[in-house]
Amino acid sequence: MENGGSTITIKGILSLLMESISELEDEEGRCVKRVISLGMGDPTLYSCFRTTQVSLQAVSDSLLSNKFHGYAPTVGLPQTRRAIAEYLSRDLPYKLSQDDVFITSGCTQAIDVALAMLARPRANILLPRPGFPIYELCAKFRNLEVRYFDLLPENGWEIDLDAVESLADENTVALVVINPGNPCGNVYSYLHLMKIAETAKKLGILVIADEVYGHLAFGSKPFVPMGVFGSIVPVLTLGSLSKRWIVPGWRLGWFVTTDPSGSFKDPKAAVPTILEQTDESFFKKTLNSLKNSSDICYDWINEIPCIDSSHRPEGSMAMMVKLNLSLLEDISDDIDFCFKLAREESVILLPGTAVGLKNWLRITFAADASSIEEAFKRIKCFYLRHAKTQSQTIVDL
Amino acid sequence: MENGGSTITIKGILSLLMESISELEDEEGRCVKRVISLGMGDPTLYSCFRTTQVSLQAVSDSLLSNKFHGYAPTVGLPQTRRAIAEYLSRDLPYKLSQDDVFITSGCTQAIDVALAMLARPRANILLPRPGFPIYELCAKFRNLEVRYFDLLPENGWEIDLDAVESLADENTVALVVINPGNPCGNVYSYLHLMKIAETAKKLGILVIADEVYGHLAFGSKPFVPMGVFGSIVPVLTLGSLSKRWIVPGWRLGWFVTTDPSGSFKDPKAAVPTILEQTDESFFKKTLNSLKNSSDICYDWINEIPCIDSSHRPEGSMAMMVKLNLSLLEDISDDIDFCFKLAREESVILLPGTAVGLKNWLRITFAADASSIEEAFKRIKCFYLRHAKTQSQTIVDL
Repeated sequence: MENGGSTITIKGILSLLMESISELEDEEGRCVKRVISLGMGDPTLYSCFRTTQVSLQAVSDSLLSNKFHGYAPTVGLPQTRRAIAEYLSRDLPYKLSQDDVFITSGCTQAIDVALAMLARPRANILLPRPGFPIYELCAKFRNLEVRYFDLLPENGWEIDLDAVESLADENTVALVVINPGNPCGNVYSYLHLMKIAETAKKLGILVIADEVYGHLAFGSKPFVPMGVFGSIVPVLTLGSLSKRWIVPGWRLGWFVTTDPSGSFKDPKAAVPTILEQTDESFFKKTLNSLKNSSDICYDWINEIPCIDSSHRPEGSMAMMVKLNLSLLEDISDDIDFCFKLAREESVILLPGTAVGLKNWLRITFAADASSIEEAFKRIKCFYLRHAKTQSQTIVDL
Repeated sequence: MENGGSTITIKGILSLLMESISELEDEEGRCVKRVISLGMGDPTLYSCFRTTQVSLQAVSDSLLSNKFHGYAPTVGLPQTRRAIAEYLSRDLPYKLSQDDVFITSGCTQAIDVALAMLARPRANILLPRPGFPIYELCAKFRNLEVRYFDLLPENGWEIDLDAVESLADENTVALVVINPGNPCGNVYSYLHLMKIAETAKKLGILVIADEVYGHLAFGSKPFVPMGVFGSIVPVLTLGSLSKRWIVPGWRLGWFVTTDPSGSFKDPKAAVPTILEQTDESFFKKTLNSLKNSSDICYDWINEIPCIDSSHRPEGSMAMMVKLNLSLLEDISDDIDFCFKLAREESVILLPGTAVGLKNWLRITFAADASSIEEAFKRIKCFYLRHAKTQSQTIVDL
């Protein structure tokens, strides 16, 4: 599958990049430069992204209550399901019930459950490119054929809906929408989401709405959950505590069917407390940090000729930048760029190939401002060292 | 698949049994009798089985350190893998290394990973009957054919190794050994385990050693890990914190290959602390409680003519008792027995059918003594109410 990322996983390539750095230790085993990774979407590595006290207290209280050490129902604790239904219903024109909600081990298991549920002989699924490689892995594991539609950088990474229509056939089961967008950092407008819903309705397919970055929108467009259009087309919403609460390692994800109904009661375990009692100021602080970090990235990108961002990030924790190889002397492609950058500057970026776009880079901006500044200074040095000289450029022309 | 439990899951049947009770509420919604479940292996439901303070403190410390909220490596944190390798190596004639250990979401995922790894076209796997239905579920999901060998009640539930030899062929990939035994409550001797290893070696197949009840041996035979025979035959050892530390809901399991090597360092996360610092007295207290509870069960079983235990439990948290239907007037089989018992007495037992033995019952003795006493009093009442009268028995003869 061209550009499909099927042979490259994000974790796999990042650990190869890491290894290529650690070979460059001095005699005492110290890295020559402090490693800065803007490769992985794990903000917990930076102290400016720390979860809220409410979450820690809630888990600690549940732990010490000695009431939650036993087996939970496979679908999740009822009070947890109810709390997530209430949390998501705040932004919907109808009420979800706890029966709509299934707890998963992170959003990754939610993806796996969704695809396993939809798999049947000859079925295919439509995935965005660039996208998130776990979809393809899970689909292949279930013998679900994968078809890619493009996200259009020139349109703020909107979905190419004409491509969706031409890719779909009678065996297409669903369309995956990642919003806010990983790896592109975009946020879709109400109008674009409605068009997606209408296209899916026309094609008779489900929408899988990956909202793991839900509410991490810090640009001009507000985050609109796909479930708002649940009356147009059935939506499976995937989400987790990972990103908004900055606890990806807690593996608390959910899988939600938007089939309105409702009845709710008093929750008590950790998750209900977390969902209900987290102060808005915590979320605002996260958004401010992300906006600030992404702005620094964006400004720096304009300083470095060989990388180019078509689109100021508005959401999520990552953005895509295009590599201009014609300005570089000895870099063959995005993977070569990332490995040389890692070795020479101890800066980790993810080659776009890993998310489906060759000769692009994914930059994660969930890092503190000083790390980002330092990383870009080094990227600039790297560029200057590898840039074609004026005369070379002329020869090339 | 006869007696294979493929259409019945433990959780499924237990929740049906529970529902059949809750229909019998009075006007205020109270159950007429307090429900006593000896159906599920979850000791946390009884206050006499409570995890140790070390575990709670370790998780609480890790939580509040703010160092473990991020993504862990897919295979688990290195210090956790190292600690489990050290913990298991204490009972082995060689040292495991952290590279032998993979962290899973409970022992259930360890089972799934093991079977997924072994699945290939035409392969089959040998499972014990009675056994644990998740093996069959995972095997079918991976298109792995399942073949059952019997555990022999008259030989303390030892494996019928002649049956194993006649079932195996060139497509057999592994043999599953559950020790201490769920659902039979047996503990295998060193000699029997060695014979299993030698049989597997002769057949050229792996042994999957399910040791989720490892160290829960309170009879005359000590717990011997299958890995002791790793030099005879390759062993995949599956285990978890769930049972020995009484925290099944924490979903911390492991999958271990016994391929000797070793190098260890200082661990710090919660699991290392739990594995290293749990006081022996905690484990002894658990064993005493289990021995006491299982003795009460065993004595009561001898008081009730229609149920019969061939074997005093020596390990794990469950035992199998045989149902003598010829002494009962209006009970058709084990499922009928359990549903009527649930409705009439609010006592939950698991029909043996769910673990592969029709007209047996699985009784979980991970409950406090007074609950067990009360449950058996009710089972005795139930028996007396449903027993054939003397004349009926004569007519039958």
